[in-house]
Amino acid sequence: MMLEKLREEVYKANMELPKRGLVTYTWGNVSGIDREKNLVVIKPSGVEYEELTPEKLVIVDLDNKIVEGNLNPSSDTKTHVELYKAFPKVGGIVHTHSSHAVAWAQAGKDIPAFGTTHADYFYGRVPCSRSLTAQEVEEDYELNTGKVIIETFKERNLEALAVPGIVCRNHGPFSWGKDAAQAVYHAVVLEEVAKMAMYTITIDPNTPEAPQYIFDKHYMRKHGPNAYYGQK
Amino acid sequence: MMLEKLREEVYKANMELPKRGLVTYTWGNVSGIDREKNLVVIKPSGVEYEELTPEKLVIVDLDNKIVEGNLNPSSDTKTHVELYKAFPKVGGIVHTHSSHAVAWAQAGKDIPAFGTTHADYFYGRVPCSRSLTAQEVEEDYELNTGKVIIETFKERNLEALAVPGIVCRNHGPFSWGKDAAQAVYHAVVLEEVAKMAMYTITIDPNTPEAPQYIFDKHYMRKHGPNAYYGQK
Amino acid sequence: MMLEKLREEVYKANMELPKRGLVTYTWGNVSGIDREKNLVVIKPSGVEYEELTPEKLVIVDLDNKIVEGNLNPSSDTKTHVELYKAFPKVGGIVHTHSSHAVAWAQAGKDIPAFGTTHADYFYGRVPCSRSLTAQEVEEDYELNTGKVIIETFKERNLEALAVPGIVCRNHGPFSWGKDAAQAVYHAVVLEEVAKMAMYTITIDPNTPEAPQYIFDKHYMRKHGPNAYYGQK
Amino acid sequence: MMLEKLREEVYKANMELPKRGLVTYTWGNVSGIDREKNLVVIKPSGVEYEELTPEKLVIVDLDNKIVEGNLNPSSDTKTHVELYKAFPKVGGIVHTHSSHAVAWAQAGKDIPAFGTTHADYFYGRVPCSRSLTAQEVEEDYELNTGKVIIETFKERNLEALAVPGIVCRNHGPFSWGKDAAQAVYHAVVLEEVAKMAMYTITIDPNTPEAPQYIFDKHYMRKHGPNAYYGQK
Repeated sequence: MMLEKLREEVYKANMELPKRGLVTYTWGNVSGIDREKNLVVIKPSGVEYEELTPEKLVIVDLDNKIVEGNLNPSSDTKTHVELYKAFPKVGGIVHTHSSHAVAWAQAGKDIPAFGTTHADYFYGRVPCSRSLTAQEVEEDYELNTGKVIIETFKERNLEALAVPGIVCRNHGPFSWGKDAAQAVYHAVVLEEVAKMAMYTITIDPNTPEAPQYIFDKHYMRKHGPNAYYGQK
Repeated sequence: MMLEKLREEVYKANMELPKRGLVTYTWGNVSGIDREKNLVVIKPSGVEYEELTPEKLVIVDLDNKIVEGNLNPSSDTKTHVELYKAFPKVGGIVHTHSSHAVAWAQAGKDIPAFGTTHADYFYGRVPCSRSLTAQEVEEDYELNTGKVIIETFKERNLEALAVPGIVCRNHGPFSWGKDAAQAVYHAVVLEEVAKMAMYTITIDPNTPEAPQYIFDKHYMRKHGPNAYYGQK
Repeated sequence: MMLEKLREEVYKANMELPKRGLVTYTWGNVSGIDREKNLVVIKPSGVEYEELTPEKLVIVDLDNKIVEGNLNPSSDTKTHVELYKAFPKVGGIVHTHSSHAVAWAQAGKDIPAFGTTHADYFYGRVPCSRSLTAQEVEEDYELNTGKVIIETFKERNLEALAVPGIVCRNHGPFSWGKDAAQAVYHAVVLEEVAKMAMYTITIDPNTPEAPQYIFDKHYMRKHGPNAYYGQK
Repeated sequence: MMLEKLREEVYKANMELPKRGLVTYTWGNVSGIDREKNLVVIKPSGVEYEELTPEKLVIVDLDNKIVEGNLNPSSDTKTHVELYKAFPKVGGIVHTHSSHAVAWAQAGKDIPAFGTTHADYFYGRVPCSRSLTAQEVEEDYELNTGKVIIETFKERNLEALAVPGIVCRNHGPFSWGKDAAQAVYHAVVLEEVAKMAMYTITIDPNTPEAPQYIFDKHYMRKHGPNAYYGQK
């Protein structure tokens, strides 16, 4: 069996989703990539988390062809693969239907950059991508979901690891990180930040976003060259 | 004891309700039908879930007469039976008082078709039925609850398995499926979708519904002749 | 030790509060009354639920004097006793700070009668009492809390067991029932109904209340002389 | 190893944060002070709660220098130390990112004094501090966070133990108490009160605050010289 270590990592990352309350039934999936071999390990489609094992994960290449595995890969595989091709520093990707992130996606709005919880992980707003056109949906829905995410990052000049997630209009969140575990961590943050932002505008619909210098400070405190959060 | 296999299925489906957080105390019930014998297995009325066993379920015929069982069937039995008679493809029915679905029922509004979580299981809005009249309530409350659900589906030209649930005005949700397990699955989806829709209009009260082609795509991806979600 | 059976009932009812998620720390208390002896068994003040035992409960008479027990009774004892004196059919009383019920109390509004979940247990709105005056607070806060609840029921001509609870302005909910267990059941219903009502006006702030005949039907279905919910 | 008893207390107080649902991942920290030795025991930065032990806690002096411990102290250490220096009666401090308290911080609003749940622990509104300036952030972010909290208490003439917490604009809550355990208790209260206040303005955005005499009564009932809540 190929890529045993990556299988194990991606398996564990998948199992974090129900543990962290991010998924109902099978509504979520995690993948990880081996950048040397250009192979992606991803959750099989529609398999319950309780029945998931590292062996059931599916390996696909960057042409979305199954390289190892007896099950169908996640129906969102093409989206994952497209993102891996566009974002070379990304090592893991997550898709969920976590409730508050979905709500921002459905409302078609960026998640505003209101505070330091957000700033610690997302260097600015969490963007909301545009809706796919009827043609894009019909032609190749999952591939074009990936393309529209990439388009959003290009148009706004965002770096994938500085803003490690997005909400896709009418759909839900995708997040990513340097590996599968970090991608899940960012999925948790994204949902938490989406919830706090909804609460914030419930208290005051006209709440302004936090000053840019707060974002500079908090993001750099954790991620800059002189980061001083945590242990070395 | 009759219909042992169906009893077991309906028992398990009932026990999913507390497990999934859909019921407080005894506020919910699941039934399943044997279409050959035209017999319905349903939860007894007011019995705590911790005390429920397959043997305590009640079997009624399509005239609402008890065929087997020492306990009274659910007080909502006539609603279930009426739906089984009108929707021949339905094999299981659920009623709950799950909080967000009840809120839409109480507000008297359809649950808007905002996104793909919804579109994966409900092909369009979740309808809200009209209030029963004083006469309908007085005459035969539970029977007429069923009739008003059926009236809503007829008037709007909806197919029961394409829109597997409804919220009954001032009351709460009913959902259904090809069997009792799927009916419960749809009850979970309905509550989740009701919650996400409430969150969505909290963020923006003027949120438009998702384009129809998103609904066509997502519903067909899971349920159409060329469905490709999950395993074969 | 006196009233062992009642102690056991009141102990079990108290332990339901944390189990049902109605209390944070020690913010709640349950009592029960022996109507023949005119003695009330009540939770001691400020004792953690994990450390509570039937023996630690305190017995007071209708003059609020301790008859048995080494601990101070709940600081809300006078409120309980006042209600027992005014509502002769009531056998158990509960006070909590459950979040949604408190919110209606803080907003100073009756919980509207929006639907059947409400109608199954409360025959009309859950009333919100007026604020105590400065003098009432200063004079005897807990006693006057009871008096204002009774005043509200008199002014509105409500029967205690038909509307088994209230939210006290700026404070929180009290509920009651024929015994301590039913009082807790009604505390759970009150919180659930408070939550659903908040959700309902989040969806539509102008939601009208349910027609009176729905209330007549649902309440009578469970509580009228021809009740047919549950088992005989 | 120094201060074993205080280490144990601060360890237990830290472990209460995940138990009470106040933290996601490592987003929170508790400290305690030994007032005779002027030494502060605090959580190490970025360490998971499951891996925390009393031995891993870090001891710093009032110049923020590490006196004992191999790990970096919490990145918020300077804020804690600054507060200990300004508030001599405070024995424990907590910082979390609990969702509802963060929402008030992000909205930049004091938590209104709506009711008795609040009044039992906070003698008036929970203040929201002003945003730090760009210069304050750049110069010494954590130190100035402490200074701005102290400034808020001075300007409003508040006593630290009468209002044992604050929400810091765009950031989140800090709370404190006579020791680490009470500081955590107040963190739980602050989150609960923040939630109830959000619910209250969801029901009625124009809700007035509770009369001052309610606050006098409830606070004094628990904390005044003639307190009668709880056991002696």
